[in-house]
Amino acid sequence: MGRQKTYLDKLSRFFQIRNLLLRQALAECLGTLILVMFGCGAVAQLVLSGGSHGMFLTVNFAFGFAATLGILVCGQVSGGHLNPAVTFALCLLGRERWRKFPTFFLFQTIGAFFGAAIIFGMYYDALWDHEGAFNVTGPKATAGIFATYPGKHLTLVNAFFDQIIGTAALIVCILAIVDPYNNPIPQGLEAFTVGFVVLVIGLSMGFNSGYAVNPARDLGPRIFTAIAGWGVDVFTVRNGWFLVPIFAPFLGTIIGVMIYQLMVGFHVEGEVRDRTQGTEQENVRLTNVTSNDNPKETNKEMH
Amino acid sequence: MGRQKTYLDKLSRFFQIRNLLLRQALAECLGTLILVMFGCGAVAQLVLSGGSHGMFLTVNFAFGFAATLGILVCGQVSGGHLNPAVTFALCLLGRERWRKFPTFFLFQTIGAFFGAAIIFGMYYDALWDHEGAFNVTGPKATAGIFATYPGKHLTLVNAFFDQIIGTAALIVCILAIVDPYNNPIPQGLEAFTVGFVVLVIGLSMGFNSGYAVNPARDLGPRIFTAIAGWGVDVFTVRNGWFLVPIFAPFLGTIIGVMIYQLMVGFHVEGEVRDRTQGTEQENVRLTNVTSNDNPKETNKEMH
Amino acid sequence: MGRQKTYLDKLSRFFQIRNLLLRQALAECLGTLILVMFGCGAVAQLVLSGGSHGMFLTVNFAFGFAATLGILVCGQVSGGHLNPAVTFALCLLGRERWRKFPTFFLFQTIGAFFGAAIIFGMYYDALWDHEGAFNVTGPKATAGIFATYPGKHLTLVNAFFDQIIGTAALIVCILAIVDPYNNPIPQGLEAFTVGFVVLVIGLSMGFNSGYAVNPARDLGPRIFTAIAGWGVDVFTVRNGWFLVPIFAPFLGTIIGVMIYQLMVGFHVEGEVRDRTQGTEQENVRLTNVTSNDNPKETNKEMH
Amino acid sequence: MGRQKTYLDKLSRFFQIRNLLLRQALAECLGTLILVMFGCGAVAQLVLSGGSHGMFLTVNFAFGFAATLGILVCGQVSGGHLNPAVTFALCLLGRERWRKFPTFFLFQTIGAFFGAAIIFGMYYDALWDHEGAFNVTGPKATAGIFATYPGKHLTLVNAFFDQIIGTAALIVCILAIVDPYNNPIPQGLEAFTVGFVVLVIGLSMGFNSGYAVNPARDLGPRIFTAIAGWGVDVFTVRNGWFLVPIFAPFLGTIIGVMIYQLMVGFHVEGEVRDRTQGTEQENVRLTNVTSNDNPKETNKEMH
Repeated sequence: MGRQKTYLDKLSRFFQIRNLLLRQALAECLGTLILVMFGCGAVAQLVLSGGSHGMFLTVNFAFGFAATLGILVCGQVSGGHLNPAVTFALCLLGRERWRKFPTFFLFQTIGAFFGAAIIFGMYYDALWDHEGAFNVTGPKATAGIFATYPGKHLTLVNAFFDQIIGTAALIVCILAIVDPYNNPIPQGLEAFTVGFVVLVIGLSMGFNSGYAVNPARDLGPRIFTAIAGWGVDVFTVRNGWFLVPIFAPFLGTIIGVMIYQLMVGFHVEGEVRDRTQGTEQENVRLTNVTSNDNPKETNKEMH
Repeated sequence: MGRQKTYLDKLSRFFQIRNLLLRQALAECLGTLILVMFGCGAVAQLVLSGGSHGMFLTVNFAFGFAATLGILVCGQVSGGHLNPAVTFALCLLGRERWRKFPTFFLFQTIGAFFGAAIIFGMYYDALWDHEGAFNVTGPKATAGIFATYPGKHLTLVNAFFDQIIGTAALIVCILAIVDPYNNPIPQGLEAFTVGFVVLVIGLSMGFNSGYAVNPARDLGPRIFTAIAGWGVDVFTVRNGWFLVPIFAPFLGTIIGVMIYQLMVGFHVEGEVRDRTQGTEQENVRLTNVTSNDNPKETNKEMH
Repeated sequence: MGRQKTYLDKLSRFFQIRNLLLRQALAECLGTLILVMFGCGAVAQLVLSGGSHGMFLTVNFAFGFAATLGILVCGQVSGGHLNPAVTFALCLLGRERWRKFPTFFLFQTIGAFFGAAIIFGMYYDALWDHEGAFNVTGPKATAGIFATYPGKHLTLVNAFFDQIIGTAALIVCILAIVDPYNNPIPQGLEAFTVGFVVLVIGLSMGFNSGYAVNPARDLGPRIFTAIAGWGVDVFTVRNGWFLVPIFAPFLGTIIGVMIYQLMVGFHVEGEVRDRTQGTEQENVRLTNVTSNDNPKETNKEMH
Repeated sequence: MGRQKTYLDKLSRFFQIRNLLLRQALAECLGTLILVMFGCGAVAQLVLSGGSHGMFLTVNFAFGFAATLGILVCGQVSGGHLNPAVTFALCLLGRERWRKFPTFFLFQTIGAFFGAAIIFGMYYDALWDHEGAFNVTGPKATAGIFATYPGKHLTLVNAFFDQIIGTAALIVCILAIVDPYNNPIPQGLEAFTVGFVVLVIGLSMGFNSGYAVNPARDLGPRIFTAIAGWGVDVFTVRNGWFLVPIFAPFLGTIIGVMIYQLMVGFHVEGEVRDRTQGTEQENVRLTNVTSNDNPKETNKEMH
């Protein structure tokens, strides 16, 4: 076994990437790939089996636990955002540098693209076997396996509002989970809790348009379907619907950050600040350093 | 990033509320809003999709995990009651001051009101698209999305009994989870466990009238529906049914507190007291202080 | 608040039971009551709603999480067996005194009796509204809400085998979870893990006869139904079927204990013994004391 | 009770196996037995009840949580692989000796064989009562209870690809969970997390051919069915399909290991190495020893 160890060690040194941002971007890419692969896989299983091997609940479970697994795979390296809206929220709060935002957005979208591609390959036979293969609209449409499309009852205004509320709810819950001044759950369970958030959003906010609440998760697979055979219809259908899950989530993020900070965040932060200044004046510098370096975000590189 | 930090710090200091009770009430308001938003959202998804995007099980999951998330968001600040019956139980046992009870009740009801309002906005198009829009009774009624209504088979006496049993079961389980003398679960998992309690109550006690077991969760959305277009019928239907989920839970709380204390609580408390007095006479004061200051309730402000 | 504290303290001292076995038996009674109340409640919800408010999966979830909650409520006091078969297994392995076995069996059965009674009261109107009210057999029978009955396809021999396998599987998993020499899960998560065991047994071994695998859970509610209006049929139906879920589980327990001990238990125990004797001869007494006094069973009183 | 203790102690010494590899192989055998017993039991319940006592989701839950329980039962002894593909991945990475691979593969297959046998015995009456008893193909076929068979739409090429993707996804997630340089979850929760991985794979990759992703889980029950009455058809059907779930998973393992190591593993390993060499030159030997002896794999015997 000595020889194998030496060889593995050499491999490890050869492939190690020393640029931190690139390493984090690659990790986000893999994490988002896992999210979309499992999530869209569950939609594919539901649609292509005609309901025998899935239902809306299984899609909710799959997206929720896929988020958990994606975060587990990449969380130690990049923080496990998997969603540009989450990166945006952490930038807004000064917990991530702004230059991370475009890089992560790009690599998350690339990950989502390949996640959709894997599911396309995996269910290739089943897709051809299905009546509505490569239809974007109609009762047997399959484009909805990959990207989200609005229900018939939905106007664009309501759709915009729907994505804003969904993302705001997501962000409020995630901020509570990762707030360094508010420790609601044991270290290491953040990924599971975020999975529950995604699950609950799917259970209660999925009927309108399939709860994208994530620009990368929607855009990557949509680009893939445009290339893979569904054509430009995926962009033109319903008067440019595809722009809603790209832009509305960022608005929702701003609202979510404001609600959480005004109703909970500023006060717990202030309480910690007051305590630090009041009772332990002499330790103030040390405590500040500690609370900056070990926040509860499972995120190593910050500031 | 320095400038952003300074600006955020200023914002934080500006908006920080220094009155503890108000801060806690606001947190309860947000927590209950989350509970009702996700919970009623799941009912809306089930009713408005005609069953394609949900079933009774998804409603149970949504209410259970919504309770978990609501507690996570506000638990560090206010204890995460989300339910006047829980506040009442803790007041009965002397673990919360009585003046908290009316304040929390009010803000929980306000939170539930806005939670229902958000879902109303989110599913506005779907609601208008639905046959029974704004019907309080009938097979396609939509009032049940927000507040609870009794099944046809249910008499008022049985309904009262149903709410008493449901709340008593809830309170017995919650008391076991937060009993400072009884440490059944690791610190930080209380929110998840309470979520399971709510889930199980929904799985087994939801058929009669939809397991409100929470005066605020029922009253807030009911007031909202009265305003939003369903009218006063929401109060007058079934001979004043709406009073049952307001008053029965408090009776259930008293029964639940009695059962738990008589069968488990007094004995574990007594055991701790006996041990403290017997073997470590000299440390008695210190131990008392510790057990008062760090109870297992994730509740900072007490007594 | 001072007066309330004093009053509560007096109440606590007055009602405190000092006999340990009685206190434990009472706790087991409450725990089993919770298990049966939530579990049978879910069956009632499924049967009485005609499938609209439940399905077999919801029953599995309810029994699983009800076991978790029952253990959480009484585990610190009595160990949270909730099942005479579990008590029997721990007695066989010398981890509980034999005199506990009949006491716990009795109080677990009493708890199950009252759990069934509560559900009977809660769904009284729904039961009368149901076609097959008080039928023990037939397509609309309701006796199966409370006690278990075998499927039509099942012979008594297979039924006996079914209960033996189910209980053996339960006991193997529970022994692994509570083995003091084998620490697979963090302290405090035993209750959740046992809940998953019960859930999985329901998912895969529930079709034959409803996976009683617990003499108390079956006998208590059966006695209740005999009294409440279903009559002696509950005992005479299918040639004395009612004896199977009383006696087969104990046989299954013996088999489960043997399998676990032969394939895993004896070896991990031996390893610990070897290590203790070999490397730390001088500490041997201390280690023995520690491993006896703090086993992983969440069980305070032992030997 | 003294006599019982002495007797149990004698039994323990008599049956203790001192050969580590045999002990581990036995543990793997029991763990895989539990996985297959609960997993295939859920399929049996679904198929034999005609859908009244199960659905595809219950099978997913059962396999997921059965993996959790199997790992809990044997994880402390053998690491809880339950799957030759997992053993293969750990050998590839130099974390297990290669001689373990054939031994574990054999005993995992034996465990799966007996797991299937137990379910066959348990549902013997129900099987004879079922129309398609002992059919390998056709709408009422029962061979699929034990081993996996491809859907009608599936070509062998796609089937091969399907098993490769499924196993690669499994391995990427498991490597992230047990990576000693990457600590995403608290010690002791690995088994639960692996259970979620198996659950999610079932939710999203189960439609093509039933997500074997485990050579032992498929081969053992297939051999059992060939003996028990389904005949050689189980091997000859669909042009030697049975070879796919034996060989494709190992290819998938190689791909999964490569993806995880290139995108995450090498970098976190390198970071730890860099930190060790850079800042704490003098402690380098000690740290190495520690990180080798206490990896996060719940695996005691390594290297």
